[in-house]
Amino acid sequence: MEIKVEFIKGPTKNTNIEVGSIINHIGERVGLHGSVYKIRRMSDFAFVLLRTKREVVQCIYSKDYAEFDLEVLKEESCIKLTADIIKEDRSKSGWELRMIDVEVLSEPIAESPIVINNKLVDTSLENLLDYRPITLRNEKERAIFKLQAGICHGFCKYFLEQSFTEIHSPKIVSAGAEGGANIFHLNYFGKDAFLAQSPQFYKQMMVGVYERVYEIAPVFRAEKHDTSRHLNEYISVDFEIGYIESFEDIMMMEVGMLRYALEELQANYTHELELLKITLPNLEKIPSIKFMEAKDLISEKYNRSIKDYEDFEPEEEKLLSEIIKKETGSDFVFVTHYPTAKRPFYAMEDPSNPHVTLSFDLLFRGLEISTGGQRIHSYKEQIQKMKRLNMNIELFETYLMIHKYGMPPHGGLGLGLERFTSKLLNQDNVRLSTLFPRDINRVTP
Amino acid sequence: MEIKVEFIKGPTKNTNIEVGSIINHIGERVGLHGSVYKIRRMSDFAFVLLRTKREVVQCIYSKDYAEFDLEVLKEESCIKLTADIIKEDRSKSGWELRMIDVEVLSEPIAESPIVINNKLVDTSLENLLDYRPITLRNEKERAIFKLQAGICHGFCKYFLEQSFTEIHSPKIVSAGAEGGANIFHLNYFGKDAFLAQSPQFYKQMMVGVYERVYEIAPVFRAEKHDTSRHLNEYISVDFEIGYIESFEDIMMMEVGMLRYALEELQANYTHELELLKITLPNLEKIPSIKFMEAKDLISEKYNRSIKDYEDFEPEEEKLLSEIIKKETGSDFVFVTHYPTAKRPFYAMEDPSNPHVTLSFDLLFRGLEISTGGQRIHSYKEQIQKMKRLNMNIELFETYLMIHKYGMPPHGGLGLGLERFTSKLLNQDNVRLSTLFPRDINRVTP
Repeated sequence: MEIKVEFIKGPTKNTNIEVGSIINHIGERVGLHGSVYKIRRMSDFAFVLLRTKREVVQCIYSKDYAEFDLEVLKEESCIKLTADIIKEDRSKSGWELRMIDVEVLSEPIAESPIVINNKLVDTSLENLLDYRPITLRNEKERAIFKLQAGICHGFCKYFLEQSFTEIHSPKIVSAGAEGGANIFHLNYFGKDAFLAQSPQFYKQMMVGVYERVYEIAPVFRAEKHDTSRHLNEYISVDFEIGYIESFEDIMMMEVGMLRYALEELQANYTHELELLKITLPNLEKIPSIKFMEAKDLISEKYNRSIKDYEDFEPEEEKLLSEIIKKETGSDFVFVTHYPTAKRPFYAMEDPSNPHVTLSFDLLFRGLEISTGGQRIHSYKEQIQKMKRLNMNIELFETYLMIHKYGMPPHGGLGLGLERFTSKLLNQDNVRLSTLFPRDINRVTP
Repeated sequence: MEIKVEFIKGPTKNTNIEVGSIINHIGERVGLHGSVYKIRRMSDFAFVLLRTKREVVQCIYSKDYAEFDLEVLKEESCIKLTADIIKEDRSKSGWELRMIDVEVLSEPIAESPIVINNKLVDTSLENLLDYRPITLRNEKERAIFKLQAGICHGFCKYFLEQSFTEIHSPKIVSAGAEGGANIFHLNYFGKDAFLAQSPQFYKQMMVGVYERVYEIAPVFRAEKHDTSRHLNEYISVDFEIGYIESFEDIMMMEVGMLRYALEELQANYTHELELLKITLPNLEKIPSIKFMEAKDLISEKYNRSIKDYEDFEPEEEKLLSEIIKKETGSDFVFVTHYPTAKRPFYAMEDPSNPHVTLSFDLLFRGLEISTGGQRIHSYKEQIQKMKRLNMNIELFETYLMIHKYGMPPHGGLGLGLERFTSKLLNQDNVRLSTLFPRDINRVTP
């Protein structure tokens, strides 16, 4: 029997051109493809906006040269287009794109109940999210998540340059890292298991292996909050580093990481930044203030009495950001030395004051976007603290292996990708920077 | 009240050097840090192997120059080391590293019950995984996951170059994409929800937005198989592309993606490849054979009767790979046109034969590592097929929005990262390439 195999090679060069390269094809007839985003009929011609991978490009339809009837085009039809690129000095781009012929690849069977091709999707948050598969096609909506991809790419570039190793830790776990009741339960082949609230234990384990590790992955919090800043599933940008001299090393690493992301956007995402009219914040350095001093400062400046000595109220985070912005010009502020009572059992205490930890939050425009700190690396110290907290040590047996068999001084942080994105884009709800948000009322689409 | 803020800047340059740059410091006294991996005492000196971020470097201890007692060092202690780099022509590296002084940062409180600093961790798979936080510190064990990080990095570089957009789809979902009973149930605030078996619906939705998207993220399968190739949670490398001319475009994209990963390893991971004695396979092109022809071929060559006309038995996948290797020299083989009965409801059928789909699997050294195909993009066609399959169309309302409001011809695939890694490294169990495996019996560490 003869074997009938074909051979598949890597992708051939696209015969259709990309919008970015149109400038190189002036005077030529080219192929393009995309969705018909909007048709604007004028008296004797029409503008047809074509939505391509990244840009929406304006095409001109005129019976003078088109070899097809405009009526064959519907908004949201997918087409292959043959076009002439004509030099046009009056146009900002230097060219105009004339539609010569189209092949309609597919058509919608109905019109979208939400208008998606205006500048903004003018509807309620509820509708925007209910119709996510369609509303994301709006030029500005999709720019948000293109920028988010750019942020992640900037982070990854930074981590690679800083000799980090990327890890993939499990999301089904036998014990929660953050403690408390805010954990999703799972029936795992008849046994009780949980969804990981963070990769905390795993990234610490991996510091013993690679010294510097990172992971960008979903985490799950069964919090019953229904606010503009909480999600029940979000993307956590986590890193953990060993051989630190102090917990400030972690904050320094975070400044570097954020700066890389902003530089990546500035370098390669100007299209989306301009579309959303975003000016990126300056990030040379970030001011840092101790928790208790911040509390006193807010109390004094705004004449508020301090109700909770262990944590911020959301309002206080906003006020602190305002003060810092005014005094230093910074949109970011580190708050350090959070009370031991409010930090997890693995948080290292300040040797000079065990009531506070060597930990920090990063606030960005009034919202906490990341939490980090130095961890206990001594077995004895960790066991003592767990006993003091009446914890069941046996449950953490595998985690405690790292302390038992040797760990360097280390620490790290987690950053909420959606929170960072939404504050960067001056949004008032984190859901706007979440592709398909999960909250207490929403598990679709 | 005066505001007491400090300013945190980006990371300062490390005063300790990296192993890779030792060659530039011959004749100098330098700082290094790492874990004491192994101490080999000789008659009047000792070799101390220092495990750093990526390399294990050999240091020489001699009382002739050391300013500390060797007894202060334990295996798995974390140290800061002051060392002299001496030119040494007899050494392969061209230098030797003399230990001058150490600062012990931390010490283990016990010896690991598993010996981790021999060439291999010589224990059962069970033990290897039970003691994962420690056994991963073995030089060869950690090289596996360094290579895995390199594979992912190669994929991402390729996707970026091919104008893909990275997406983050939700893992808590209201309906399964793959159907069947193999889905984990979750109590989501009193409602029933599931863990995503794949990002299938979401990546298709996003094709309508960006044309080309990818995601590297965990997926969850509640399969009760207990085999060397099944995991209940694994990392799926998913992509989906629009405006395809045929389903072969997807396979071509996969060839490109795999080639980039192998090139990335060849360029930047020779250290780990040499350590694990891995020769990378050739990947210029991949042979492709139709499912039924492959069935016949195996049956004829090995004189086996065909029992299942709709799917491969695992043994058949192995035999097919053997035949293809012998006939074409390729370690990979695409199998195309799988029976419609065995493919999901969104799979596009072959217009010339509706009993088969425009789909494929990729086999690598006898194991299926990825599954893909063209999807139905016409609303009418999709609805008809769902009715034929007696599916509850209402359940898929949000998914079907994309078909209703316009979608280009499209398709994509998912690749199991752990399976690919383990076959590349010639392992006989996928768990060996899984950082913290989850199977029917294991949910720790």
